[in-house]
Amino acid sequence: MTWNTPGLDGLPVYEKLRKLARNPFDLTAPKALSRDRILSYKAAAAGFDLLYSTQRVDDPVLNGLQQLADQSGAVDQFLAMKQGAVMNRIEGYASENRQVLHTACRDIFSDVPSNAEATQQAKQQLAKLQVFLAELENGKVTNARGETFTDYINIGIGGSDLGPRALYLALSAYAQKSRRVHFISNVDPDDAAGVLQNLDLARTLVGVVSKSGSTLETLTNEELVRTAYLRAGLDPRHHFLAITGKGSSMDDPGKYLRAFHMYDYIGGRYSATSMVGAVMLGFALGYDAFIKILRGAHEMDRAAEARDIRQNPALLLALLGIWNHNFLGHETLAILPYSQALLRFPAHLQQCDMESNGKSLARNGVKVTFDTGPIVWGEPGTNGQHAFYQLLHQGTAIVPAEFIGFRQSQHELDLEIKATTSQQKLVANLLAQALALATGRQHENPNRFFAGNRPSSILLADKLEPYTMGALLALYEAKIVMQGFIWNINSFDQEGVQLGKILADRFLDHMSIASQGEAGDRDAHPESWAMLAAAGILPEGRL
Amino acid sequence: MTWNTPGLDGLPVYEKLRKLARNPFDLTAPKALSRDRILSYKAAAAGFDLLYSTQRVDDPVLNGLQQLADQSGAVDQFLAMKQGAVMNRIEGYASENRQVLHTACRDIFSDVPSNAEATQQAKQQLAKLQVFLAELENGKVTNARGETFTDYINIGIGGSDLGPRALYLALSAYAQKSRRVHFISNVDPDDAAGVLQNLDLARTLVGVVSKSGSTLETLTNEELVRTAYLRAGLDPRHHFLAITGKGSSMDDPGKYLRAFHMYDYIGGRYSATSMVGAVMLGFALGYDAFIKILRGAHEMDRAAEARDIRQNPALLLALLGIWNHNFLGHETLAILPYSQALLRFPAHLQQCDMESNGKSLARNGVKVTFDTGPIVWGEPGTNGQHAFYQLLHQGTAIVPAEFIGFRQSQHELDLEIKATTSQQKLVANLLAQALALATGRQHENPNRFFAGNRPSSILLADKLEPYTMGALLALYEAKIVMQGFIWNINSFDQEGVQLGKILADRFLDHMSIASQGEAGDRDAHPESWAMLAAAGILPEGRL
Repeated sequence: MTWNTPGLDGLPVYEKLRKLARNPFDLTAPKALSRDRILSYKAAAAGFDLLYSTQRVDDPVLNGLQQLADQSGAVDQFLAMKQGAVMNRIEGYASENRQVLHTACRDIFSDVPSNAEATQQAKQQLAKLQVFLAELENGKVTNARGETFTDYINIGIGGSDLGPRALYLALSAYAQKSRRVHFISNVDPDDAAGVLQNLDLARTLVGVVSKSGSTLETLTNEELVRTAYLRAGLDPRHHFLAITGKGSSMDDPGKYLRAFHMYDYIGGRYSATSMVGAVMLGFALGYDAFIKILRGAHEMDRAAEARDIRQNPALLLALLGIWNHNFLGHETLAILPYSQALLRFPAHLQQCDMESNGKSLARNGVKVTFDTGPIVWGEPGTNGQHAFYQLLHQGTAIVPAEFIGFRQSQHELDLEIKATTSQQKLVANLLAQALALATGRQHENPNRFFAGNRPSSILLADKLEPYTMGALLALYEAKIVMQGFIWNINSFDQEGVQLGKILADRFLDHMSIASQGEAGDRDAHPESWAMLAAAGILPEGRL
Repeated sequence: MTWNTPGLDGLPVYEKLRKLARNPFDLTAPKALSRDRILSYKAAAAGFDLLYSTQRVDDPVLNGLQQLADQSGAVDQFLAMKQGAVMNRIEGYASENRQVLHTACRDIFSDVPSNAEATQQAKQQLAKLQVFLAELENGKVTNARGETFTDYINIGIGGSDLGPRALYLALSAYAQKSRRVHFISNVDPDDAAGVLQNLDLARTLVGVVSKSGSTLETLTNEELVRTAYLRAGLDPRHHFLAITGKGSSMDDPGKYLRAFHMYDYIGGRYSATSMVGAVMLGFALGYDAFIKILRGAHEMDRAAEARDIRQNPALLLALLGIWNHNFLGHETLAILPYSQALLRFPAHLQQCDMESNGKSLARNGVKVTFDTGPIVWGEPGTNGQHAFYQLLHQGTAIVPAEFIGFRQSQHELDLEIKATTSQQKLVANLLAQALALATGRQHENPNRFFAGNRPSSILLADKLEPYTMGALLALYEAKIVMQGFIWNINSFDQEGVQLGKILADRFLDHMSIASQGEAGDRDAHPESWAMLAAAGILPEGRL
């Protein structure tokens, strides 16, 4: 099966949407935000409501977006992906040529999963994890002194760090007592040093996460941490876990207490519900809580199969994003969770979205003729309100926003002050921002004037818990791949990271040569030698 | 003195720069990055080198940018600001009408400071802090049981949180043993709950930071934490410190162990070197380390007075930003520190830059006719390389970048693996990214083609220490205000945050009314009642 849809601007509905975009719905007009509009521009799935009355769309635009979904075959492609089609490819050129089956990790609740083989592999890994977690619990697996493990270091970078870390922080309110997780990702040696200085290594597990088993930063940090264990007189084999591709160089029972496997059909940025997230989250939250995450993700995956965009929050969010980005011309997207526990969720989405859709090539090997993935950024509210919201309201750039909020807090600690709780204040601020951005305000003082017509959506659930966290993760994963399908790009490779790696190796070669007092061939790459000198890494006289 | 420069597009050099921008320097041309260019496109101040050979500028453009600086009077305005001119104003309309004197906080090293009165006030506060820190040290100030304090909670939001937090994380490698700092900012009750659950309150100081003494989030969180103290049988007056405007409602000796003052001429986002940062950082790092931060900041403030842009990294960075934003049309700016300790510095800059320059009104009360402040975002490298750099290299949007790096690590823990240390790997990656973005790469496989011509600058210092951290902070503060001067906007107010506050109060009113079972006037603001219903906060039937 090939998916060579023509790309956004080749679809019949493209010109119609362009015309509609010349005169988009005016949110600042009197009574534009009618009660009917607000109550009916709402979709729901897997515990989440998506409110979109504050987007610059009306029924004709929504009908056009429905046609866009239909004409691009977005849902058909999503179904094909879940079933195991080779979606990770560029036609006519060397490419990864892989299936894309992160959804299979959570397709474990039915007797007829979309891709039976991948789900079977996921179940085997889950069973292995369940046994391991029980052994930690019942004292069958301990450290050399027979003590239980209280801490866990996750060593990984990119998808082996951002998604798992975002989920851990989101759910740490529910962590088992006396179990804490720490993260080492950066090759910066101060990252590892900062984590190690306050830990009792004897009671700490170390999960090393790399699909290929060859990620430079991760292997370097593993070595740093192994050295610390050896210096402390501890045998790493009682502490280190491998989370890696089956058969990778890290898949070595001689070096690790246990190995858990991931497969080449799961990309790093989509791997949080595979063993990449499972081992660490299972340690912190318990096995059952992790299964709840999977259930939420799975139910959102199912909801993403709906062809009616008004019944499919993931697809609708994808289309609203394309409307804002390609038709209204807004370059960025702000993710604004009104939940401090989601503080690193925007960083996860930054990777998941920008690494997936920051592409210039269509899947048929031709350069695209329209904008692909937006720049994604954001911080939790209400904090952001005291930071960058000034620009959102009165800057010269227009930034579409996606608000995320919850009706209840996680902890029970809340107080009524001036007749409302903190949680009520939080939700009131979220709604107020969406409304203020949309309607703006007339004012005689031009510095107190707000132009309005700044579009946003609101995602709301009852409470941030394992189930809703899983659903939210899957909602955005589905949104991102749907956008890629409509743009006709490959959302699953990352060739753009390769050139930097090659040049970093060249700089490191130069540094080794120089530190050994050798001259090297300074004419071969004059620009990199000169940059090292300009940076003060080589004495200038050495050039 | 008034500063009604015509604004960017009214300056004589504007058209010249527009013409030059039609054909900007091509970084991908053979030998474009010559040794001479790389070594000479470099400025230095206060421990930092700014390398800018990978920007799309050549000598004619740099000369044009020098004229832009001269014609806009950027340095004259900066000097006037330091001396106490009323820079925070909009002519002809109600506005804050304040001086802007954050630089006075660190202008304490000479006998003739630029503004003697403000510096005198800063010195008085520093003297008070020095005494207090000594009393903590020598046991004169303890808790009720005579024990020393080990922990410190900073309660503040926006400028009372982001800058201080970024500095603490940047320098926590140098924190005094057994002293730790925690931060509560968000009105989300889970933020405070998460911090409080693992603390020994009896040995914890609480610094409450609000210039006005009336910040909703901060007062709410203070109340939450006070309640926790009372429940623990502890008297808050032995633990709570006020950092507030002299005479504010928080300036109350009956409620606080000590009060430290800030003044109305220091805006929140520029306040990290005032008592806002000083008390917390003094507790964590010691008084002398804080003075080193001030010294670094002061020396960069002095360097920012140079009229030759090639000798003034702050001004040059401001001009390169304007070149990329207004002339080459790039909407965003990525801040990419190659230092894990700087993980929250981009979030600080997001506030400092976007709240300052996310404006649409010139200082003469007229709407600007060009783009003002960019969208600022970023994460540390090398982490970002495994996340969003795909888009930086191969996306359809071009994102100018500012790299920040250090030649040495903070901790001593580093290892040679494959003949180079982790710190060398970190710096090699930084240089490699700048080079790859600039030169790109030809390739027969279009998916492995890199277009290049993606501009960046590199800021490098020997080591991230109190002095360099102060210098880096001041470099960006000066950059941001210089851009505001050139755009002729008021970088010191934040009227854009007001509308959201008003609407949040309205939503809270509705919630109180509904929770008391009253009907309220549902016709007065139908859109906010409908949003509450759509959000599931009110039962829909209640509408």
